[in-house]
Amino acid sequence: MEKKLAELKTILAEITDLGQASAILGWDQQTYMPRGAAEARGNQQALLGRLIQEWSTSPKLGKLLDQLKPYAESLDPDSDDARLIQVSARDFAKATCVPTEFVVEFTKVTTAANQAWVEARQKSDFSIFRPHLEKIVGLRRRYAGFFPEAGHPYDALLDDFEPGMKTDDVKAIFTALRPQQVELIKAIGAKPQVDDSFLRQPFDEKKQWDFGVEVITKFGYDWNHGRQDKAPHPFTTAFGYTDVRITTRVDPNFLNPMLFGTMHECGHALHGLGFAPALDRTGLDGSASLAIGESQSRLWENLVGRSLPFWQHFYPRLQEHFPSQVGNVPLEKFYKGINRVQPSLIRVEADEATYNLHIMLRLEVEIAVIEGKLAVKDLPEYWNTKMQEYLGMTPPNDAAGVLQDIHWSFGAFGYFSTYALGNLVSAQLWEMINRDIPDLADHVRAGKFESLLVWLREKIHRHGRKFKPQELMQKVAGSKIDPAPYVRYLRTKYSEIYGL
Amino acid sequence: MEKKLAELKTILAEITDLGQASAILGWDQQTYMPRGAAEARGNQQALLGRLIQEWSTSPKLGKLLDQLKPYAESLDPDSDDARLIQVSARDFAKATCVPTEFVVEFTKVTTAANQAWVEARQKSDFSIFRPHLEKIVGLRRRYAGFFPEAGHPYDALLDDFEPGMKTDDVKAIFTALRPQQVELIKAIGAKPQVDDSFLRQPFDEKKQWDFGVEVITKFGYDWNHGRQDKAPHPFTTAFGYTDVRITTRVDPNFLNPMLFGTMHECGHALHGLGFAPALDRTGLDGSASLAIGESQSRLWENLVGRSLPFWQHFYPRLQEHFPSQVGNVPLEKFYKGINRVQPSLIRVEADEATYNLHIMLRLEVEIAVIEGKLAVKDLPEYWNTKMQEYLGMTPPNDAAGVLQDIHWSFGAFGYFSTYALGNLVSAQLWEMINRDIPDLADHVRAGKFESLLVWLREKIHRHGRKFKPQELMQKVAGSKIDPAPYVRYLRTKYSEIYGL
Repeated sequence: MEKKLAELKTILAEITDLGQASAILGWDQQTYMPRGAAEARGNQQALLGRLIQEWSTSPKLGKLLDQLKPYAESLDPDSDDARLIQVSARDFAKATCVPTEFVVEFTKVTTAANQAWVEARQKSDFSIFRPHLEKIVGLRRRYAGFFPEAGHPYDALLDDFEPGMKTDDVKAIFTALRPQQVELIKAIGAKPQVDDSFLRQPFDEKKQWDFGVEVITKFGYDWNHGRQDKAPHPFTTAFGYTDVRITTRVDPNFLNPMLFGTMHECGHALHGLGFAPALDRTGLDGSASLAIGESQSRLWENLVGRSLPFWQHFYPRLQEHFPSQVGNVPLEKFYKGINRVQPSLIRVEADEATYNLHIMLRLEVEIAVIEGKLAVKDLPEYWNTKMQEYLGMTPPNDAAGVLQDIHWSFGAFGYFSTYALGNLVSAQLWEMINRDIPDLADHVRAGKFESLLVWLREKIHRHGRKFKPQELMQKVAGSKIDPAPYVRYLRTKYSEIYGL
Repeated sequence: MEKKLAELKTILAEITDLGQASAILGWDQQTYMPRGAAEARGNQQALLGRLIQEWSTSPKLGKLLDQLKPYAESLDPDSDDARLIQVSARDFAKATCVPTEFVVEFTKVTTAANQAWVEARQKSDFSIFRPHLEKIVGLRRRYAGFFPEAGHPYDALLDDFEPGMKTDDVKAIFTALRPQQVELIKAIGAKPQVDDSFLRQPFDEKKQWDFGVEVITKFGYDWNHGRQDKAPHPFTTAFGYTDVRITTRVDPNFLNPMLFGTMHECGHALHGLGFAPALDRTGLDGSASLAIGESQSRLWENLVGRSLPFWQHFYPRLQEHFPSQVGNVPLEKFYKGINRVQPSLIRVEADEATYNLHIMLRLEVEIAVIEGKLAVKDLPEYWNTKMQEYLGMTPPNDAAGVLQDIHWSFGAFGYFSTYALGNLVSAQLWEMINRDIPDLADHVRAGKFESLLVWLREKIHRHGRKFKPQELMQKVAGSKIDPAPYVRYLRTKYSEIYGL
C-alpha cells in the first residue's frame, strides 16, 4: 500500500505543479501582461485547465483512490495520509461530475471575461462586460446541473468554496445576523459622526507603499518567499508554500485602500506560507475553505489592523511618513477615523459594521441570477435598487456599482458569502486567541506579532485542507461558525468609539 | 489530407501553448520570482518540459508527419503548409533522439543552475556555480551523444541554434574574419583615442529608462503587445507574436548598458512581433536561427543605434534629458564616444570592432569543454588566460570574467558563435536595405523607422522558421553568411571616426 500511496502522491504533486503553473499565468495576467495578449493567454490557460481536469479525473487516479480507501480507514483518521486519501477522493468525485470540455470552455470564457471586466470597469460601461457575464452565468447554471443531488443549484456552487456548507445554512446565519447589524448601525447613526477627512487627502504613493511594506514585514511576511505588486483588484496567489505573492492598490488621495488592503492580503499570504511542509504538492496545501481563508485576512486587517494597540505602535511611524497629513491628528482621532461607520458603495472599502450588508446583497443577487429569476441585462438596475434598500445609497455609475468586483469575471459565483463568514470566523478565533494569549494586546502594542502568528500557524495554517471548515472550527473553537462573537466584537468596539 | 493537416496543426498549437506557458514561468523567474521559490519553479518547469518533450516525440505526431510527407511534396515547396510539415518533421526527428528523462533532468538542473549563477555572479564566486556547470557540461556531452552522425560533438549543439551550420563552417568564417578585425583594431590603436568619459557619470535611472522607452516606441515597439522590465541579464521572450517582452538593465553611472541594451532587445522584439499570423502556434513562429535573430537585435542596436543619422535625430532629446551630463558635449564628440574602440572585459558592453573577439574566445572555450580537453574547475583560469591573449586584458574577478554571461546556466552551449554570425548578417542585410531604400539615412535622421521595419518584416520577420538560415540569406541577400560586408562596414565607419 505504501507503493500505491507514493503513486498517489506523485500524481497529486504533478496536478499541483500544473495548477501552480496556471496560477503563475494568472498572476501575470493580473499584474503585467500586455493587453493585446489576452487571446494567447486564453489558449495557454485553456490547455493547462484541460490537463488539470484530465489528470484530476483520470481513471488511474480513481482506481488508486478506491484501492487506498481501506488503507485510509486503517490509519489514524486525523493523520495526513488518511486525510489525503479522503480529501482527494472527495475532490475526485466532484471533478468527475464535470466534463473536460466544460472546463476548457469555462477557462476560455473567463479569461476573455476578465480582460473585458477590466476595460468595462475602467470605462464604467457594463455593456462591455455583459455578453461575457451572460456566458458565465449560463456556464455556472450548467455546472450546477452536474450535481443533481444538490438541494439547490446554488449549493453546488457554494460547496466549491465552502465544502459542506448549504445555501440554507448561510441564509440562516445571515438571517440571525442581519437584524443585529442593522440595529447597531442605527444606534451608531443616532450618534454624532466621527471625522475621517484626514484620510482623504493626497498621500505620496511611494510613501504609502513603503509604510505598508513596513507593517507587513513586522507581521512576519517573508520576502524571500513572497513579493508585492500592484493590481487593479488586489489578490493573493500561491505557487506552493514557498512562493506566495500579494498585490495591492494605492489610491493617491485616500489612505485606506493601501493600508487595509495590504494587511488584508498579507493575512492571506501568512496563511499560504504556513501550510505544513508535509502537505506541499499534495492538494491539501490550500485553505480549508474560503471562509477560513478570509478569516485570516480579515483578522490581520481588522482585529489587528483597526485596533487601538496596533496604532499605539504604528501611529508614530505613520506620522513620520506623513507629517503634514496626520502630524497634528491625535491618535484617538485617527483611531476613530479609521473605524468610522458610514454606508458606502464599495465593498472592499466598507467598514466592519456595514461590510456584511454588501455580502447579503450579493448573496441575494447571485441566488436570483442562478435561479434564473434575474437576467444579466437587468443586473445594474437591480443592483442599484438593492443598494438603496440595504445601504441607502445608489451608485452613480456601474464602476462603483455592479462592476466593482472582479470575482464574477472569473466565474466565481457562490464565493461572496464566504467573505461574511470569514468575518464571523475571525472574531470567533480572536476570542480564542485572547483567551490563550492574555497579554496579546501588549505584544501588538510593542509591534510584536510572533505569538499571534504562531497561534494561527498551529491552530489553522498548518492543517491546510485536511479538515472541512465546520470540522476545523469545531476542533479549534469548540463550535461551528457562529455569528455571536462577531456581534459582541462590533458592539464592544463601536460602543467605545461612538459612546453608545 | 486536409483533416490530417488540421490534426497536425492542433498538436503543434498545443505544444506551442505549453512552450509559451513555460516561457512565462521563465520570464517570471528572471524578473520577479522570490529567491526562495527556486525549487518549486524547478518542479513546475520540469513537468512542463517533460510534457513538451513527450508531445513533441509522440508516435501519433510521428505517424501524422509520415502520412503528410507525400502531401507536402505535392505542394509549392515554399508554401506555409509544405514548410510546416518539413520543419516539423525535422524537429520531430531531432526530438526523438533525446530521451524524455534526459529533458526532465536538464530542466531541473538548469533551473537550479540559473539561480546559482545569479548568486555566483553577485558574489563573484565561481565555486557557487561550478558544481551546477559541471552537471550541465556532463548533460551537454550526453546530449551530443544522442546524435552520433554529427561530425563533431559540438555540431550537435550548434545545430540546435543554427540549423544546418557546422562547427567547421563557423571556424572557417572566424578564421577569415579574425585577422581583418585584428588588423583594424591595431590600426585604430595607432590613432589618438576618442573621449567617452561623458558616458561614465551619474545618469538618473528613471530618466535613462524613459529615454530608452522613447527610442523604442519610435522604432515601432508595440506596447499593447509588449512590456519592458528590469533583469540582471537582459533578454527578450515571446509568448506568441502577441506578447513579446523585453528586459533591460540600467547602470546609474554609465549610459551605454541601458541605451544599447534596450535597442538590442527591441530589435529582437520587433522580430518576434513580426511573424506572419498564419505561423502563430505552429512552431514556425520563431527565428530561423539565433544568428538571424541576433542580426535583428544588432541591426537596431548598432547599424541604427550607433549611427550618426540616428543621433542627429535623438541627440537633442538626450541632451534635454541630461543637460548637465551631455548638454555641452557636441554631437560629433558624442557620436565618436559611443563608437570608441577599446578592448573590454564584458562582451555585452564591447564595441563593434572588438565584440567578435569575445565570441571567438567563447567558441574556443566551449569546444575545449565539450571535447573534454578543459575541466570546468579550470575554466576561470583558462578564461583569464584567453582574455589576455585575445583582448590583452585579465579580468579582476570572475563576475567580470567567466561568470559574466547567463547562457551556460541555461545549458546553452553552442550558442555564442551565433552572436558573431548575427553581426555579419546584420551588415549583409544593411547593404541590401540601403540598396532598396536609398534615402534610409534621411528617414532615420527624421526619426522615422517605418520603411526599415517594413523591409525587415517583409524580408525576414514574417518567414519565421520557414527557411534554414543559410537558405533565407540566399533568398534575401543572394549569398550565404559572408563576413565581407561587416568588414566593409567597420572599415568605413572607423576610418571616419579615427581618421584611418
